[in-house]
Amino acid sequence: MTGPRFTDLVASLPATVPFVGPETQERARGRPFRARLGANESLFGPSPRAVAAMQEAAREAWKYGDSTSHDLRAALAADLGVAPGNVMVGEGIDGLLGYLVRMLVAPGDPVVTSAGAYPTFNYHVAGFGGALHLVPFAGDHEDPDGLIARAREVGAKLVYLSNPNNPMGSWHPAARVQAMVEAVPEGTLMVLDEAYIEFAPTGTAPPIDPDDPRVIRLRTFSKAHGLAGARVGYAIGAAPLIAGFDKVRNHFGMCRISQAGALASLGDPAWLAEVGAQVAAARDRIGAIARANGLVALPSATNFVTVDCGGDGALARAVLAGLAERDVFVRMPGVAPLDRCIRISAGPEDQLDVLAEALPGALAAAR
Amino acid sequence: MTGPRFTDLVASLPATVPFVGPETQERARGRPFRARLGANESLFGPSPRAVAAMQEAAREAWKYGDSTSHDLRAALAADLGVAPGNVMVGEGIDGLLGYLVRMLVAPGDPVVTSAGAYPTFNYHVAGFGGALHLVPFAGDHEDPDGLIARAREVGAKLVYLSNPNNPMGSWHPAARVQAMVEAVPEGTLMVLDEAYIEFAPTGTAPPIDPDDPRVIRLRTFSKAHGLAGARVGYAIGAAPLIAGFDKVRNHFGMCRISQAGALASLGDPAWLAEVGAQVAAARDRIGAIARANGLVALPSATNFVTVDCGGDGALARAVLAGLAERDVFVRMPGVAPLDRCIRISAGPEDQLDVLAEALPGALAAAR
Repeated sequence: MTGPRFTDLVASLPATVPFVGPETQERARGRPFRARLGANESLFGPSPRAVAAMQEAAREAWKYGDSTSHDLRAALAADLGVAPGNVMVGEGIDGLLGYLVRMLVAPGDPVVTSAGAYPTFNYHVAGFGGALHLVPFAGDHEDPDGLIARAREVGAKLVYLSNPNNPMGSWHPAARVQAMVEAVPEGTLMVLDEAYIEFAPTGTAPPIDPDDPRVIRLRTFSKAHGLAGARVGYAIGAAPLIAGFDKVRNHFGMCRISQAGALASLGDPAWLAEVGAQVAAARDRIGAIARANGLVALPSATNFVTVDCGGDGALARAVLAGLAERDVFVRMPGVAPLDRCIRISAGPEDQLDVLAEALPGALAAAR
Repeated sequence: MTGPRFTDLVASLPATVPFVGPETQERARGRPFRARLGANESLFGPSPRAVAAMQEAAREAWKYGDSTSHDLRAALAADLGVAPGNVMVGEGIDGLLGYLVRMLVAPGDPVVTSAGAYPTFNYHVAGFGGALHLVPFAGDHEDPDGLIARAREVGAKLVYLSNPNNPMGSWHPAARVQAMVEAVPEGTLMVLDEAYIEFAPTGTAPPIDPDDPRVIRLRTFSKAHGLAGARVGYAIGAAPLIAGFDKVRNHFGMCRISQAGALASLGDPAWLAEVGAQVAAARDRIGAIARANGLVALPSATNFVTVDCGGDGALARAVLAGLAERDVFVRMPGVAPLDRCIRISAGPEDQLDVLAEALPGALAAAR
């Protein structure tokens, strides 16, 4: 009896996963974290309206969700000033990235992203056999010019930019991003990941031109809306591209409860504004905690703050380990020189108190 | 400016979808159905314990779900008498089928199933470029011998059997299914879809040998557990095969609320027994309604009854249309000669009253 007859491609894939979740770490540690500040979740929670809608929908969980997410797509389209045919709802940005890569990337096809940008995008590209080409960050920013130049050089199917950026928290103004769109080579699609856009200053997102075939934008209910666990993301793009998702996606893949929660959250902009204010205050607090420890907090347009530990990757990894020992869950960039930093999610006062208490010891131990 | 540069495979795929959801039909009709009896959902609803767990989890929806579904997998494994490494949780059987096909089926690889069996399996096979080989039903049953013979002949990567069967409601006893497993050719994996197994007579499921590399079994919380909208399915198989899912799946794809609901439902076997009794009563009632209209209800080991309309596919399609006009949502098999039937989900008395009221008129109009 032989083992599974995987395809050659799948047999060649590593068993590594893009992220180890905090629950997995807690089981390995044998005790829970006191501060959950590593996954850029919204510790301020979902809108009470979203919670109420999900609690109501839980009773009707015996029904499959609407396979077209019609009402949610219609509401998003109205909000964005586009047609429903320009919007696709999926199982988080992660799910949509998987479908997008599958639609466009055949084995060997070139794809361009930044070294140190979103690992789950790379996971999907590798998973469909794409050839990843990595462009270094320019300082702590993704480098639009470098990305476009490489995309042109290799004839990329996709070129990825996150704005604001994860894991550094940096951002480019809308004009710079729009200039990148204008420069996208023929035959390349720009993937503009705007997961954190609600936290960014006005003028960070270029105006949406839904018929522009050069770019697809990805947004999510996981961050500002506080619905990471519900798994609702959406893509905005030209209708022929958006229609392509229907050829490959899991049509009945959306949780009905999540659809209801996202729709209700969309109807509560006041909650988003409140969360935005709390996140801004938390960023300031994290900055103050960093400074009190002699560290530099990088500017952030997201719901996290990336803190330069002032050394190399080994030092930052030791700080991260020291924080974990002190029951604080944070993450860090995976690639030098970004990995001199740790990345701390915004959270309420009591969570940041735990951080403030733990950081000096973690730093001392790391040094 | 050109259109999207899809892969050759994706460009070749049709835009058709496996199923049109009832909400989509309602929007097209301009009015809701009065009886929702087409999607084999559990109209008896989820366990109250599952509802309570989901309502509680809704408050914590800001957290990503556990990417390994550890607790749910552990509980399933304990229930099934296997190791957690023999169980994979995914976004419904549909989601797991997509991952499974992706793991094993490269473009051109042969796959065997029954003509008229689950369309979403075929959708995934086509979506990854597999070559589908269809074996006719033997009467109203899938034909294990025919499936195995064809799998051997074409060197199939996968051979699919649902037991009990959808859309006919028929089933084979465990010994017959186990004999099929024993006959699986070297290099072929049998996909045993047991979505409806909880409704089947004792002795329908072969004992689980988790280390048998010849078969992967798929089960779900969508049917007996009444959690179709939550999207939780699971696969049971040999550890090397189950580990393969981690190379391709959307690791953070599971809804946290759904994980909680499924786990709670697993802890409420009394609810499952209650639903089973209600489904049995509803099957009897659907049989009586069919007989009262001069139709033959096929035996069923599922939560639906397939009713022979006594003519050809055109007649059954007309009956289905007549029922829809009368606000009753049902579905029907897609392939002759199975398509002489319509398929009616079990439901509570008031829903079946609507069916009883509508069927005579729908039949008269169809004739």
